Amino acid sequence: MLCLVSESFDAVDVITTKRDKGELSDGQIDWVIDAYTRGVVADEQMSSLAMAILLNGMNRREIARWTQAMIDSGERMDFSSLSRATADKHSTGGVGDKITLPLAPLVAACGVAVPQLSGRGLGHTGGTLDKLESVPGWQAALSNEAMMRQLEDVGAVICAAGAGLAPADKKLYALRDVTGTVEAIPLIASSIMSKKIAEGTGALVLDVKVGSGAFMKNVDDARELARTMVDLGTDAGVKTVALLTNMQTPLGLTAGNALEVRESVEVLAGGGPEDVVELTVTLAREMLAAAGKDDADPADALKDGRAMDVWKAMIRAQGGDPDAALPTARETHEVLVPADGVLTQLDAYKVGVAAWRLGAGRARKEDPVQAGAGVEMQYKPGASVRAGERLLTLHTDTPERFERALEVLDGAFTIAPEGSRPDLLPLVIDRVG
Amino acid sequence: MLCLVSESFDAVDVITTKRDKGELSDGQIDWVIDAYTRGVVADEQMSSLAMAILLNGMNRREIARWTQAMIDSGERMDFSSLSRATADKHSTGGVGDKITLPLAPLVAACGVAVPQLSGRGLGHTGGTLDKLESVPGWQAALSNEAMMRQLEDVGAVICAAGAGLAPADKKLYALRDVTGTVEAIPLIASSIMSKKIAEGTGALVLDVKVGSGAFMKNVDDARELARTMVDLGTDAGVKTVALLTNMQTPLGLTAGNALEVRESVEVLAGGGPEDVVELTVTLAREMLAAAGKDDADPADALKDGRAMDVWKAMIRAQGGDPDAALPTARETHEVLVPADGVLTQLDAYKVGVAAWRLGAGRARKEDPVQAGAGVEMQYKPGASVRAGERLLTLHTDTPERFERALEVLDGAFTIAPEGSRPDLLPLVIDRVG
Repeated sequence: MLCLVSESFDAVDVITTKRDKGELSDGQIDWVIDAYTRGVVADEQMSSLAMAILLNGMNRREIARWTQAMIDSGERMDFSSLSRATADKHSTGGVGDKITLPLAPLVAACGVAVPQLSGRGLGHTGGTLDKLESVPGWQAALSNEAMMRQLEDVGAVICAAGAGLAPADKKLYALRDVTGTVEAIPLIASSIMSKKIAEGTGALVLDVKVGSGAFMKNVDDARELARTMVDLGTDAGVKTVALLTNMQTPLGLTAGNALEVRESVEVLAGGGPEDVVELTVTLAREMLAAAGKDDADPADALKDGRAMDVWKAMIRAQGGDPDAALPTARETHEVLVPADGVLTQLDAYKVGVAAWRLGAGRARKEDPVQAGAGVEMQYKPGASVRAGERLLTLHTDTPERFERALEVLDGAFTIAPEGSRPDLLPLVIDRVG
Repeated sequence: MLCLVSESFDAVDVITTKRDKGELSDGQIDWVIDAYTRGVVADEQMSSLAMAILLNGMNRREIARWTQAMIDSGERMDFSSLSRATADKHSTGGVGDKITLPLAPLVAACGVAVPQLSGRGLGHTGGTLDKLESVPGWQAALSNEAMMRQLEDVGAVICAAGAGLAPADKKLYALRDVTGTVEAIPLIASSIMSKKIAEGTGALVLDVKVGSGAFMKNVDDARELARTMVDLGTDAGVKTVALLTNMQTPLGLTAGNALEVRESVEVLAGGGPEDVVELTVTLAREMLAAAGKDDADPADALKDGRAMDVWKAMIRAQGGDPDAALPTARETHEVLVPADGVLTQLDAYKVGVAAWRLGAGRARKEDPVQAGAGVEMQYKPGASVRAGERLLTLHTDTPERFERALEVLDGAFTIAPEGSRPDLLPLVIDRVG
């Protein structure tokens, strides 16, 4: 048990406390996060602590303190000088989840400002910034001043989070990714909430995905994560609510960058797939209510073009051309319906991996993505289909990728006899407030 | 999950298998030990795996394979060319445990060769090499050739293990020390047994210590460790037996380097504390039996000077002078008996920490030790004592150390009213064969 004389705690003591199912004290938590950020606690010590937390858990006080310590590792933003209330949304990530794109301008059109700091995709789930970068000219990076100005003028901003927010979380997240310690609810919850609280929004709506395409494969785990995050937000003075939503099958009919922007624009134009419209409007109502603005009807703002106006202003404010043609992939490959019947299953995870393999996602943080790559779906589960019809269209610039995408799509869908019904959870499964 | 294309396994898969209470396959174990030794599996990955093993365990097959993989990470020794059978002893470490010093020459005097590769002390338990280095001129480092020659000529050698034996274990042990993952029975057992099996001895007697001064604080844990190690040895073709022995109170009346050599020489001269003599003879009988030599009586060899002759030859063969005066500390401090009564408790851990703080042990591997430092005890538990008599004598070259040694000795002993009896486990608690 070696430690520098000036340190008030010892890493091995902190690790063995949690290993032996004890509670970490406030002092231990503050110290270990700060010392890890400073490099005094080594990666190999933090990873064994993370595994002990994953296996032995943390209570509400420990998780709140852990989150606060990560917030305190960096800077905080403050939107209190804005003339409007703010509301933010966070999704735990899914396949075809383009909801942020129509949602941010829709909520802004209803009078609540939306400061949406977003990330890039890693693995089979897409990233909002990757999607928007398929819009010609659009830039993800904004200074804090430019962001505040855009929030005041346009009402909505979707941009990259600066490096200054919760640096301890950034370091810990990268470590968890390579040490088998991602799937710890206390660590997932504190990672998400430290960034959202540091961001300084007044209201937060969490979209906790459940199903094959999500982190949380079952409703119980998702509910525990939702409850943990709502408690953290509430304790930090942020009005927080969580919806548990279905990620057994992809959202909408597209998974990919430009493909999802196109679908989002269809929704903003008053059309688009029913599930995307329903989830966008439901989340908008929650955000408006959480921000104290109950009098606006987001369904109207979607239909009458007000949300589209904010979308165009938002894209233009970040250098993009909302009227330019979106990039398309050089090659396509069609997967046909094998037999007459009902599409009862279309697996989110497999479609997500296929889109990733086609070039829409990245295996390493530094990899580029293809703007046009992805999977286009012709039908949602429940549809009657006929043999020989187009079911899926795969898009890529690099046709050698079709083979591995088709491999993972084996078993991705089920065509059952006429009269069958899909066994799906509802789109919105539960609400935790 | 990033891995080099040429690797057949992925560290995160191995970690999550054990994290989710699965069994590691032979292939996973072979790969992770080899890849860790090569630096392909990083420290932060191995430490989270070690924590998952500590909390979720390994079965007998996994532990055996893990041990074999650590043996395969380095070289093996081979004593089959010797004219005599070999037997080795390993103690899990305790306070005042100088048994190796009289035991190795005693067993050699009875006709079985003893190749004793030993270590240095870390923390509150002493190291055999540190103790022998207090003998003027004695050298711990021997080439393999010199070791074989000494085994043939003298019959006993106590020397430092070369760097070539189980290098995976050396790397993993250092990692466990700083990541709160020392106390995992599968990892303790495989660490000890990988070195002992690689050493190539034909018979092995394990002295598993139980009590405050030992790794294992209770009999059940010690029995599980003993059983695990005996199974590992047996499966590897080494005749292995384990004794569970008492480490609630120090062995003998000394804890420290030269102090323990002095007591060992007293035992070799036919005197010395009763418990040291008893454990030495008991372990010698086990080693002789395990090596197939049942006709010798070690108690005789201790009394008639044959063991002392081997001791002197063994010390001389490694450059030492067995007749030279041993170093003594520059300063002493006496702790007196506070009241008339019976000494019912003398705590091994506290005495060990006191000796360590006086300079007998080291906090970091690179620290030097004081040859003369340590604690000398006047009485064993059960003795009647009178107020004002000397109970403990503290030895150090650096008298500023007395204060912190005295601090830890607070509560280290209990004087109960006349007629009381100590509540102690027997010296030999159990035998696992």
